[in-house]
Amino acid sequence: MAFLGELLTNVADRGRALIGFERFMAQRNRPIDRLCEDLLSGRGEASGMALAQGVLDAWERLDKPGRRAFFAMLQERFGPDHERLDRAIEAYRKAPGAGTISALHVASEPRRQELLRRLNLAPGGTHVLVRMREALFEAMESDRDLMTVDADFRHLFGSWFNRGFLVLRRIDWRSPANVLEKIIRYEAVHEIQGWDDLRRRLEPGDRRCFAFFHPQLTDEPLIFVEVALTRAIPRSIGEVLSGEREVLPAAEATTAVFYSISNCQEGLRGISFGNFLIKQVAEDLKRELPGLDTFVTLSPVPGFARWLEGLVAAPGDLALTNEERSELARPAGETISLDEATRARRDKLLGQMMAHYMLRARTPAGRVIDPVARFHLGNGARLERINVGGNLSARGLRESHGVMVNYRYDLNDIETNHEAYATRDTVVASSAVRKMLRPAAS
Amino acid sequence: MAFLGELLTNVADRGRALIGFERFMAQRNRPIDRLCEDLLSGRGEASGMALAQGVLDAWERLDKPGRRAFFAMLQERFGPDHERLDRAIEAYRKAPGAGTISALHVASEPRRQELLRRLNLAPGGTHVLVRMREALFEAMESDRDLMTVDADFRHLFGSWFNRGFLVLRRIDWRSPANVLEKIIRYEAVHEIQGWDDLRRRLEPGDRRCFAFFHPQLTDEPLIFVEVALTRAIPRSIGEVLSGEREVLPAAEATTAVFYSISNCQEGLRGISFGNFLIKQVAEDLKRELPGLDTFVTLSPVPGFARWLEGLVAAPGDLALTNEERSELARPAGETISLDEATRARRDKLLGQMMAHYMLRARTPAGRVIDPVARFHLGNGARLERINVGGNLSARGLRESHGVMVNYRYDLNDIETNHEAYATRDTVVASSAVRKMLRPAAS
Amino acid sequence: MAFLGELLTNVADRGRALIGFERFMAQRNRPIDRLCEDLLSGRGEASGMALAQGVLDAWERLDKPGRRAFFAMLQERFGPDHERLDRAIEAYRKAPGAGTISALHVASEPRRQELLRRLNLAPGGTHVLVRMREALFEAMESDRDLMTVDADFRHLFGSWFNRGFLVLRRIDWRSPANVLEKIIRYEAVHEIQGWDDLRRRLEPGDRRCFAFFHPQLTDEPLIFVEVALTRAIPRSIGEVLSGEREVLPAAEATTAVFYSISNCQEGLRGISFGNFLIKQVAEDLKRELPGLDTFVTLSPVPGFARWLEGLVAAPGDLALTNEERSELARPAGETISLDEATRARRDKLLGQMMAHYMLRARTPAGRVIDPVARFHLGNGARLERINVGGNLSARGLRESHGVMVNYRYDLNDIETNHEAYATRDTVVASSAVRKMLRPAAS
Amino acid sequence: MAFLGELLTNVADRGRALIGFERFMAQRNRPIDRLCEDLLSGRGEASGMALAQGVLDAWERLDKPGRRAFFAMLQERFGPDHERLDRAIEAYRKAPGAGTISALHVASEPRRQELLRRLNLAPGGTHVLVRMREALFEAMESDRDLMTVDADFRHLFGSWFNRGFLVLRRIDWRSPANVLEKIIRYEAVHEIQGWDDLRRRLEPGDRRCFAFFHPQLTDEPLIFVEVALTRAIPRSIGEVLSGEREVLPAAEATTAVFYSISNCQEGLRGISFGNFLIKQVAEDLKRELPGLDTFVTLSPVPGFARWLEGLVAAPGDLALTNEERSELARPAGETISLDEATRARRDKLLGQMMAHYMLRARTPAGRVIDPVARFHLGNGARLERINVGGNLSARGLRESHGVMVNYRYDLNDIETNHEAYATRDTVVASSAVRKMLRPAAS
Repeated sequence: MAFLGELLTNVADRGRALIGFERFMAQRNRPIDRLCEDLLSGRGEASGMALAQGVLDAWERLDKPGRRAFFAMLQERFGPDHERLDRAIEAYRKAPGAGTISALHVASEPRRQELLRRLNLAPGGTHVLVRMREALFEAMESDRDLMTVDADFRHLFGSWFNRGFLVLRRIDWRSPANVLEKIIRYEAVHEIQGWDDLRRRLEPGDRRCFAFFHPQLTDEPLIFVEVALTRAIPRSIGEVLSGEREVLPAAEATTAVFYSISNCQEGLRGISFGNFLIKQVAEDLKRELPGLDTFVTLSPVPGFARWLEGLVAAPGDLALTNEERSELARPAGETISLDEATRARRDKLLGQMMAHYMLRARTPAGRVIDPVARFHLGNGARLERINVGGNLSARGLRESHGVMVNYRYDLNDIETNHEAYATRDTVVASSAVRKMLRPAAS
Repeated sequence: MAFLGELLTNVADRGRALIGFERFMAQRNRPIDRLCEDLLSGRGEASGMALAQGVLDAWERLDKPGRRAFFAMLQERFGPDHERLDRAIEAYRKAPGAGTISALHVASEPRRQELLRRLNLAPGGTHVLVRMREALFEAMESDRDLMTVDADFRHLFGSWFNRGFLVLRRIDWRSPANVLEKIIRYEAVHEIQGWDDLRRRLEPGDRRCFAFFHPQLTDEPLIFVEVALTRAIPRSIGEVLSGEREVLPAAEATTAVFYSISNCQEGLRGISFGNFLIKQVAEDLKRELPGLDTFVTLSPVPGFARWLEGLVAAPGDLALTNEERSELARPAGETISLDEATRARRDKLLGQMMAHYMLRARTPAGRVIDPVARFHLGNGARLERINVGGNLSARGLRESHGVMVNYRYDLNDIETNHEAYATRDTVVASSAVRKMLRPAAS
Repeated sequence: MAFLGELLTNVADRGRALIGFERFMAQRNRPIDRLCEDLLSGRGEASGMALAQGVLDAWERLDKPGRRAFFAMLQERFGPDHERLDRAIEAYRKAPGAGTISALHVASEPRRQELLRRLNLAPGGTHVLVRMREALFEAMESDRDLMTVDADFRHLFGSWFNRGFLVLRRIDWRSPANVLEKIIRYEAVHEIQGWDDLRRRLEPGDRRCFAFFHPQLTDEPLIFVEVALTRAIPRSIGEVLSGEREVLPAAEATTAVFYSISNCQEGLRGISFGNFLIKQVAEDLKRELPGLDTFVTLSPVPGFARWLEGLVAAPGDLALTNEERSELARPAGETISLDEATRARRDKLLGQMMAHYMLRARTPAGRVIDPVARFHLGNGARLERINVGGNLSARGLRESHGVMVNYRYDLNDIETNHEAYATRDTVVASSAVRKMLRPAAS
Repeated sequence: MAFLGELLTNVADRGRALIGFERFMAQRNRPIDRLCEDLLSGRGEASGMALAQGVLDAWERLDKPGRRAFFAMLQERFGPDHERLDRAIEAYRKAPGAGTISALHVASEPRRQELLRRLNLAPGGTHVLVRMREALFEAMESDRDLMTVDADFRHLFGSWFNRGFLVLRRIDWRSPANVLEKIIRYEAVHEIQGWDDLRRRLEPGDRRCFAFFHPQLTDEPLIFVEVALTRAIPRSIGEVLSGEREVLPAAEATTAVFYSISNCQEGLRGISFGNFLIKQVAEDLKRELPGLDTFVTLSPVPGFARWLEGLVAAPGDLALTNEERSELARPAGETISLDEATRARRDKLLGQMMAHYMLRARTPAGRVIDPVARFHLGNGARLERINVGGNLSARGLRESHGVMVNYRYDLNDIETNHEAYATRDTVVASSAVRKMLRPAAS
């Protein structure tokens, strides 16, 4: 006769607790598609949390083919109701107006959107749904039709992970270990070698790290940025990460360098936080340290080497000499032992190429080629400086011949910069960068 | 040259901080409709938080006619793009399929949905949007067209305030005063007379109070429930609220009585939490106090007196005698000095009428008449007991001739109960209640 | 066989849980003096927490005569061991040195000090011990011998409540209600009329309240100070507390006014925190609001009226005229309807008297008379201003003819001021105050 | 004119902030002994926090000889006032009584006790004082007179770190990294190999770790215990720490095994917490997991091998055969390749020796030899089982020939066990252990 048959200690038992043991066992034996239909039906109103828990538990037990079948089911059986849609179109045709449009909008909404909203009723549901989308990406590789399913995930996640719901938290050496291990795991730009390396990036007084969290994913950073406080805009990642550098008292810093930004949740791909993160962190740092007046990145240029390869093959109007072309084709490994003059020439040449890559080169569709550049320029940053030799790691050499760049965030110019970029694909750059452009061959 | 021109201490200054003083002043002078358009445009991508803040600040400065105009603007200028919608319909007609439906769905979405999502970027935006909907209700009274605007608010709030994002918190005498004052203010069933009365409801060991909160509205309970722990199902609110009763050690309680449930946010009207709240609280209490085995409400019946009035005028097949009719028409004030026999007769009669009201009487559309009954029956509760004389306050006498009822939540029956109610409008009731039904006149 | 026989939910059952049911019951039947001896013996090492709990529970059940007997027992039976002491003196006489002094110090320590330390092992023990000292004060009224017992309490509390262990917390309208009710209860200077009045002192942006807490007494403030942020040093408590005043944006304040300081724990009488509280709050406010440059009190002068009464009777070398003496003897109630010239004369006269009271009048032992003055001057503050008509409440008129004063805390002068006061009983005062002194009659 | 001349961001600048720049600089140039005298004088009352900070800062800058000199100064110049002491003795002789004893106690207190209390006024002072005692231990090695100084530290720390002020916290994989690194560093029994090893000890559902913290040393555990939840009393540390074992659902555990207890603060040596820690953790675990009914340790026996070496040399009345003596003298490294029969004989012999070591062998003063045994027996535990081969690590073999033991905490017997041990040095042991004793040679 009891309402809740037992002491609940196990999250896995929640479903059981919420609807009683027998129903729970019955539920476990129902196929997942029936459970989904139940959840969308009236039963879902009476015992939504339990049903949602049941679906998610069942989903977690599925193997890879089972999950593919699940997504296919979402795509085929939980789309919009076609009859209803046709009726709505008819009604709109007869009487176009706010009411009929609204009905049309509702009728064209796939049923899976409501299903996903109801799945989120389960304790910890949001987290499972994010992982579900990760699995969906994998399934999409062999089944492009699933993109319509993903569109619904993205729509909902866009709403749920609205910046207004995110919380900015500083990550430091006092943060919980289970969060820190994720920082180690997800750092995507300059790999963290382990706990000692992590500590070097978090503990010194001139280092900061911030992440966005969502209240429902408490131990899971969504995105984080690593910051170095300095007295000048740095030219290389080596000087930033050096374990030997002298620690600068934070109050004496003038410059905040965003040297690494990493997304943590593959399942939130396409939901953009980076823009907000940089600006919010800049604001918070400025409040803590009024002496800061410069906010820049130290960024990789991941598309440069590949573009340059193409250029060397077909230099077009850049009019490269043969000597220059063979210099640019030189394997990365060989450049270590260059004599000073050759190196200086090579450096100058690389700088010119980078300036061209950034300011002039475009995709066939007319867009800036580099993805990192597109991100920062789209945020309204300007290209501040080109640093030849900025990253001499194997990856840095391979991706960009070791060149890095700084983007600068200056609030007064953000909108103008953004507009120039967004409407005309114009890259706003410092005069120093512009001067590096090689005079056009005439 | 500075990124953020100053130390920020004032939320009202945030917009200024985020885009610089001059732009901030310029923004303040732009009309609110231009700001909304900016926010939806590319500019919104570059400086969304600042623009959103600007719109919300401007909105808060509007007077009542200004707000009406604002809502009208949302309705007229931020609906769907008609041309695009017609093209989408055309495309769908030509090639019905997931892709064209999806495009149709997007095209039929009013632009204000995205606008509201972007307004939520501002710090504290969610709170302002909830208050905005409150103002919208007022405006809707004179302009029913605004209901289409409200549909968009409700759609978004339904997603944002999904139960999966809510947090259950116990409210007690250690809770923050600014939360407690809201409990006093929002208690809608049995008014709280002040801080001492509040304390009597929170501090004793056999009292509990729980509320749902949303992470973005930290000081604002969304809905709360007051619970009494007892050894029997109570028959009257007087025995529950009595200041003289002996406090029961919580570990000895067998029964949890939900004696008051109040919504706090008018702006979230129609977004249902009560169902989840009761079940979650029951689960949490059961975990804390394994001795609990009965979960009931002590509920008002707000529609009873009005219905009874109609009945007395036209008793239909209930075949009331003239004596009964005049007894039921007796003004509440007069019943105090009845002799015992008359009172007993009257009580029995009231009980019969209440059983009829609950089990048999229906609206013209065939639905249960009482709104509180609809809520609990829709949640799967059953009608457990009718308590004549349960609430002798002026309001209790006026609304329901002093009768209260208990609804019982028994997990094993919730789905069956819900189904009986949802599909056939059948009210599941205890045999004691069913026996109170007056035999049909033949 | 079980280690801990049951689920523990009740603090009162702790003793039982910690030593098993039978021993617990046996313990309950032992007289409290035996329990105390047990606690000091070897048994105390094995089951100290349980025994300590047992003693404290037994103590809480004692009635007033029982508690007096308990304190008498502490005094008589738990003093130092006389034989051991005599041996220690002998040893010291024979061989004076660090070792024998140390032994002498230990031998002269009353056994109750260790007893009190062991009582503190019980969960919540610190709180009970503070209340125990409150009861001791009452018992001391009829038994002055208990002062030696109190000396041990004070010694231990001085160590336990060392400022280094205290935590400063801001109290505001978001603080827990059970803390706020203590603020209402303990406010000793300007009574708080209820929750609305409290709110007026906490919520406006130009009000602050801070308290010291001890980690073991989480819901119990030890001492608190109320602060008003203003643009000038206030002349009356009325302007500070006025509900009609316009709220000043905190960032525009130049002056922090400490207008009320109240101790909360009678059981900590004589353990001084006020000095640290003022300086710490000043430091924290300065950090939050760099615009603050003046830190003053607005203080009562509780000894003034009584002193003045004596003076009027025997003016000594102040050479008061008869007219002045009758003016000063005028009952407070009569002064309301004075004409302007009389009032001005009276105000000037009161100011002269106050300046004399502060700067010249001394107790027979040569000390400053006013207790509040001794506190602030001892902290190194200086007397900044005399405000005739500063407090026209019944109490203000009765205690000090309505006069209040400001003490100023200026860091650069604190040590000098303190030294002047501590070594020579000199009161450092502003020139404005000094000028108010009536020229000595020659 | 400013009270606090600047924004305070640096703890090191606190002294400066608290007394103004010039005084701060002056203070820095005063010798540390003068600062100590100031702190004890009236100046200490006016600006105690600043002076205390000044002393502690100066102390931290001292090199090793400087610190030795500092301690010598405490010993020589801050002892009791001899004249006053002699007067107090005289007064006591003339009139022995509570008052004169009390005065004698005060007069015999070294002045450094009050000095240490005042040093604790500084922010973070407690932490520095704990480290100061660490340094004192080092200095004591060459200067035994400093033991009287240490007596004062110990007296104060005993009062400040009273169990009533400690907080028990669970340590898990969500704990802050700066706390966890201390767990790695301080684990003194079974070394933790790094973060992965730590994680294996914290994260699985059948592992627990608890530590005592003091509110003033928030990031510094004082002592911690590692616990394994099992279904039987384990025989070897290998089975406890094995990375391959299957994780046991906590709710199914019957036995809590305390397999490692480590003190973290050398500066708190002699202040005992371990007794309280074990009992409190047992209580908390029992509450969380009612299925637990056995609480045991798995403990090293660090004194066994050394004792056995002596025994082999001079077996006394144990009447070892020559064969047995050479077996017991066999180097640890050689035992790996023993045949089964030899091993069985050896194991039995080792068990007999261990039983003898625990139950019969005593120091010349009649005490149990093993320090770990003394700790647990003094807490009232009984010796439950001897595990030959319990720890085959190099250290385990070296210290105890690989033998470990279990001590059992059974609440009902704790006091009796303790009493037997404390008054008669009797070791309470299970019959299984007693049976292992070799019959006495007759």
